[in-house]
Amino acid sequence: MVNNILDTVKVKKPLIHHITNMVTINDCANVTLAVGGLPVMAHAIEEVEEMVSNSQALVLNIGTLTLEQVKAMIKAGKKANSLNIPVIFDPVGAGATKIRTETSKKILNEVQISVIKGNKAEIGILTGSGGKIRGVEAESNDENIESYKNFAKEYNCIVAASGVTDVVTDGNSVYKVDNGHSMLGKISGTGCMLTSIIANFCAVESNHLQATVSAMVAFGLAGELAASRSEVKGPASFKEAFFDEIFNLTDEKLNRGIKVRGEVN
Amino acid sequence: MVNNILDTVKVKKPLIHHITNMVTINDCANVTLAVGGLPVMAHAIEEVEEMVSNSQALVLNIGTLTLEQVKAMIKAGKKANSLNIPVIFDPVGAGATKIRTETSKKILNEVQISVIKGNKAEIGILTGSGGKIRGVEAESNDENIESYKNFAKEYNCIVAASGVTDVVTDGNSVYKVDNGHSMLGKISGTGCMLTSIIANFCAVESNHLQATVSAMVAFGLAGELAASRSEVKGPASFKEAFFDEIFNLTDEKLNRGIKVRGEVN
Amino acid sequence: MVNNILDTVKVKKPLIHHITNMVTINDCANVTLAVGGLPVMAHAIEEVEEMVSNSQALVLNIGTLTLEQVKAMIKAGKKANSLNIPVIFDPVGAGATKIRTETSKKILNEVQISVIKGNKAEIGILTGSGGKIRGVEAESNDENIESYKNFAKEYNCIVAASGVTDVVTDGNSVYKVDNGHSMLGKISGTGCMLTSIIANFCAVESNHLQATVSAMVAFGLAGELAASRSEVKGPASFKEAFFDEIFNLTDEKLNRGIKVRGEVN
Repeated sequence: MVNNILDTVKVKKPLIHHITNMVTINDCANVTLAVGGLPVMAHAIEEVEEMVSNSQALVLNIGTLTLEQVKAMIKAGKKANSLNIPVIFDPVGAGATKIRTETSKKILNEVQISVIKGNKAEIGILTGSGGKIRGVEAESNDENIESYKNFAKEYNCIVAASGVTDVVTDGNSVYKVDNGHSMLGKISGTGCMLTSIIANFCAVESNHLQATVSAMVAFGLAGELAASRSEVKGPASFKEAFFDEIFNLTDEKLNRGIKVRGEVN
Repeated sequence: MVNNILDTVKVKKPLIHHITNMVTINDCANVTLAVGGLPVMAHAIEEVEEMVSNSQALVLNIGTLTLEQVKAMIKAGKKANSLNIPVIFDPVGAGATKIRTETSKKILNEVQISVIKGNKAEIGILTGSGGKIRGVEAESNDENIESYKNFAKEYNCIVAASGVTDVVTDGNSVYKVDNGHSMLGKISGTGCMLTSIIANFCAVESNHLQATVSAMVAFGLAGELAASRSEVKGPASFKEAFFDEIFNLTDEKLNRGIKVRGEVN
Repeated sequence: MVNNILDTVKVKKPLIHHITNMVTINDCANVTLAVGGLPVMAHAIEEVEEMVSNSQALVLNIGTLTLEQVKAMIKAGKKANSLNIPVIFDPVGAGATKIRTETSKKILNEVQISVIKGNKAEIGILTGSGGKIRGVEAESNDENIESYKNFAKEYNCIVAASGVTDVVTDGNSVYKVDNGHSMLGKISGTGCMLTSIIANFCAVESNHLQATVSAMVAFGLAGELAASRSEVKGPASFKEAFFDEIFNLTDEKLNRGIKVRGEVN
């Protein structure tokens, strides 16, 4: 699954254009650097087309959306589509408010998304199987693989639903990722950071199913390694260790630590 | 004073809707998670009413205000009022510029605030006893308890003035909190984080005077515990230790470490 | 070169008004506190003139510019000019998009800048000697000292081009700073933080050439000291150590660690 994807990111240093929220924007920049890519954050409507044209992937994250920002997202997304640059979409808080749900649908309908990544409530709400969200956190962890598969086929994209076990599907194959650690839920922005890592991997690997599963393994494994460190005494020291572990990941570590159950159809 | 407030936060996981500044927004999210609550940051005027309706407290913080953002604050605040959701207000930089002072007064007049928390310059300027501010930092640490009490009665809210000694009043009782550490002044955003902790406590404890005093104890005590750690060598290692200590606080630790002088009238 | 500049910052605690990007705004606030100054971040067009009037330096950083924000930058810059408050300009991503290049030129033409600080691609593009940029990172590290000198004379400002070796000139003298460490390139925002440190130093030292060179020494030396610590295991632990080292710098350490080659003309 993983192959030499981390090495490739480090060699190619893909430029990842983010239009994202103001809560975790710094974390997304730093995790991109840590994994080997180059981050650029730009949301002015006058420049997003030009910026994305020089990028190798585009992240759209609606964590602190405004209608103005959504316009820039769609403009950048369409430009990315025209240049075959993968677009990774994180529908943060879909289901929590009407404009988050409607914006998510609008982006899905107007931009060809390569990967949609959300927690199981966000993904459940958008794929129609339902879910319960409080703010931006999933309250329910139910999964409905059939609805994920249908959605992936309908929108021709990868669906990645994160949770204790992550589920990833392209509409045919289904993978379950068991890497991860509960401490990842104690810090803000882990979902956004995972999305950024997926973008880095999709920027260098055209098999986006494989790239997404590998990114989820990398993210979860770094969490496991960080949590096992003796100096970790709470969420802040865990976060520091997590970033360091992301930086120190290798393809060999990934291949040793991978916990994926494949159900290839 | 403290009772089992931390346990209650951890069990109830209150959702804390923040409309806040872009400097410390990540810190406020993380401190909310560390203390046991769930943060959500949302400022689009189209969604603030819906978001606050599902929340257990609302934080309004004008650290990087714009007039557009203030409109969203007032809309969210009025909705919170209609649903009896406590509103915690941090008038960052009141006195530093006209729009900060005027916005603070506007919010106080249009929204029923549960707690106003500021440094002694901000609180002095708004309560009419005067104060000197440089940017967002108090230059004067004078306190005028009578003016705080009058203000608390007039606006039917808790007044919390932070400083070396914090002063908290509901207009009748006055409490002084001596917990804290000078290193807290060496990192950006501690005032904002304190406001977020107050919001978490007020979300689960209807006695907002007690909740506010307890939050100030928790905040100050975590600072004391962090500063005493041998690995702390400057503000960044202190900040990491501080977050970890917030996460590891218990009601028992609070009751052991509390330094409050009550002047109940 | 350095004299007692750090001591002076710590004694005078200059207020540094930032109009900056949302990616690294928290880092800029914290680095200002760590070096001894006071940060204030304010971008509402209604308050920037008033805020800068009480400040000792103004930072303009276009890392996540919008046209609205640029208007506030120019308004604040003109006010700073009228009060002889130094303006430090960081043209983040100049060359990456048309609006970044044009905005940089507009600011340079409408505001009297004291110091322009960028990476060698940004500075090369603006001074006319050319450069290659990917997002906000220099791809080329070529320098063209003659074009820097001409630009410094034309705009009557200090030109500071950061890279493995930093180059600083006022149009006559040229200094090269060899302090620094490759780990500084592994975290987001180091360029922005350097700009903030330059602003702190220019706020208390009217010889801006000397202040800028000293700031670059301080920044690079803190990076060297941080990287040499045994607990540093990746970019996040490096970043923590870096902030702590900035906080613990002294003029004596600077004078011992300085690596500057002067070519005074």
